[in-house]
Amino acid sequence: MAPNSLRGVFAAVLTPMHDDGAVDLRALGRHCTTLMREGCHGVSLFGTTGEGPALTAEERMAGLEAVLEAGVPAANILPGTGCAAIPDAVRLTRHAVAHGCTNVLLMPPFFFKDVSDEGVAAVYSRIIDRVADPALRIVIYNFPAVTGVWVREDAIARINRDYPEAIAGVKDSSGDWGYVNGLLDRFPDLGVFTGWETLVPRLVQAGGAGNISGLANVIPGVLRDLYERCPTSPEDRSLIAVTRVVEAVGKFPVIAAIKALAANLRHSAAWRNMRAPLVPLSAESERSLLASFEHAMQGLKMESRSNA
Amino acid sequence: MAPNSLRGVFAAVLTPMHDDGAVDLRALGRHCTTLMREGCHGVSLFGTTGEGPALTAEERMAGLEAVLEAGVPAANILPGTGCAAIPDAVRLTRHAVAHGCTNVLLMPPFFFKDVSDEGVAAVYSRIIDRVADPALRIVIYNFPAVTGVWVREDAIARINRDYPEAIAGVKDSSGDWGYVNGLLDRFPDLGVFTGWETLVPRLVQAGGAGNISGLANVIPGVLRDLYERCPTSPEDRSLIAVTRVVEAVGKFPVIAAIKALAANLRHSAAWRNMRAPLVPLSAESERSLLASFEHAMQGLKMESRSNA
Repeated sequence: MAPNSLRGVFAAVLTPMHDDGAVDLRALGRHCTTLMREGCHGVSLFGTTGEGPALTAEERMAGLEAVLEAGVPAANILPGTGCAAIPDAVRLTRHAVAHGCTNVLLMPPFFFKDVSDEGVAAVYSRIIDRVADPALRIVIYNFPAVTGVWVREDAIARINRDYPEAIAGVKDSSGDWGYVNGLLDRFPDLGVFTGWETLVPRLVQAGGAGNISGLANVIPGVLRDLYERCPTSPEDRSLIAVTRVVEAVGKFPVIAAIKALAANLRHSAAWRNMRAPLVPLSAESERSLLASFEHAMQGLKMESRSNA
Repeated sequence: MAPNSLRGVFAAVLTPMHDDGAVDLRALGRHCTTLMREGCHGVSLFGTTGEGPALTAEERMAGLEAVLEAGVPAANILPGTGCAAIPDAVRLTRHAVAHGCTNVLLMPPFFFKDVSDEGVAAVYSRIIDRVADPALRIVIYNFPAVTGVWVREDAIARINRDYPEAIAGVKDSSGDWGYVNGLLDRFPDLGVFTGWETLVPRLVQAGGAGNISGLANVIPGVLRDLYERCPTSPEDRSLIAVTRVVEAVGKFPVIAAIKALAANLRHSAAWRNMRAPLVPLSAESERSLLASFEHAMQGLKMESRSNA
């Protein structure tokens, strides 16, 4: 098994875009350094929140290089290198490892649905064989609601048996506690991350590795606090705030909602830009979201005032 | 509206692969010329049956060039140019048009699910604007069970209103007759194709353009006959045979099943090769499929014997 060195809160980084849809490389680098300063242990690029599959391989390689040039250490970057075509995933993974980013977040190809465990395991085998670099450490990415593919425990067992050194962990975005708990039991040496912010205390207390989170783009400090303290009381103010933000965002298309929050919190309208078929929130939806967000964060402000 | 010149039976061409997974360009060209000789009006490359999204943009461009070099006229080729990333779709579409293949089959990006009509229409707008070639004619590809995206009538109305010259038709693989019929009513100048072989007589009699068919890889002649005669009697032998083949194939993962039939009918084991996460049928499944296929085709052989 690979040493379980990856832990903590990783932002599933939004990809900033110019008005013409091109990736804003400078803003991407700046955003990542800001997130590191504001409490993230690391940044994960070009996953779902980062609209990764909407970007070409060339755009993703340029984006990773921009984040490195902005000064984020390679060890703190978890680039998403999954693609619909395996040769593209191999190319991106090789590029990441060559740039010192030996940990990659790898979703399976997402065009064909309901594929077999055998087929999913074969995807990872092909990629590991072709990248052929002993430094490679893969975090398997399971997000069946979007990819249409479950990376089931049995597929992970096959991959982990055949390539124990190459598998570092699993990021689960299904939110299925039974699945996550099964992974913790069966693969104690793998780092298990969740994409569900409110599950973090439970996951970390059960031995999980942490959170790879879209909301960390806008509330990194609160999520860091949640990870560090792992509060279980339903009256914990951070837990209440995060739960309310998750609910607020969940009423809208999630990536558009996080981009709308970023546009407001980071004071830049360009954060609203996204690639078709995704579209920004309407002005009315954005107002409603912001009101809910401010309400959710109110409790935290009151606490810090009473602590002062 | 674009002139509705595209009609007939187009094979949704399987992509032959070497044992290492690389596209067998020579076999692809040869297969396409065989299909044209055996009754297809044209060949559609790199759609779902062709595992298009499992191939890189470079592989798809090389594949199209190989089919042209094999002697298939550009006017009879409908390359699939849809990709998860719009810039890749633009690149493939420009390449196709530059090679004289002005008709392209274009699925929307397929990573994000349940997107809006506005977002789907924006995808086509962006691609048409960026390809910026008046020769371009798009066949919109609707296959929601695989892409997770419905290209609804309202999205098509927007695109067709804004770019009437650029839209040639729609290929529907949902099999939803209400959808297809709605398109025929509302867009009489668009060529409406179905991916469902058994719907062809009904579609063509209602004014539809024809069939873009995975089964045309293995039974092109029968499908041509179905298209030409449009039989409606449930006792029609071609219709019975096609219905039985559809049922036989539908008991298995469809692309693996068609590749297994091709391996047997075209006498080449390499036809079974496919890209992970798809996997070939087991030997037992293949035997069962072949038996059902031979049974389905028996009625046709009896007919041709009695005609002789």
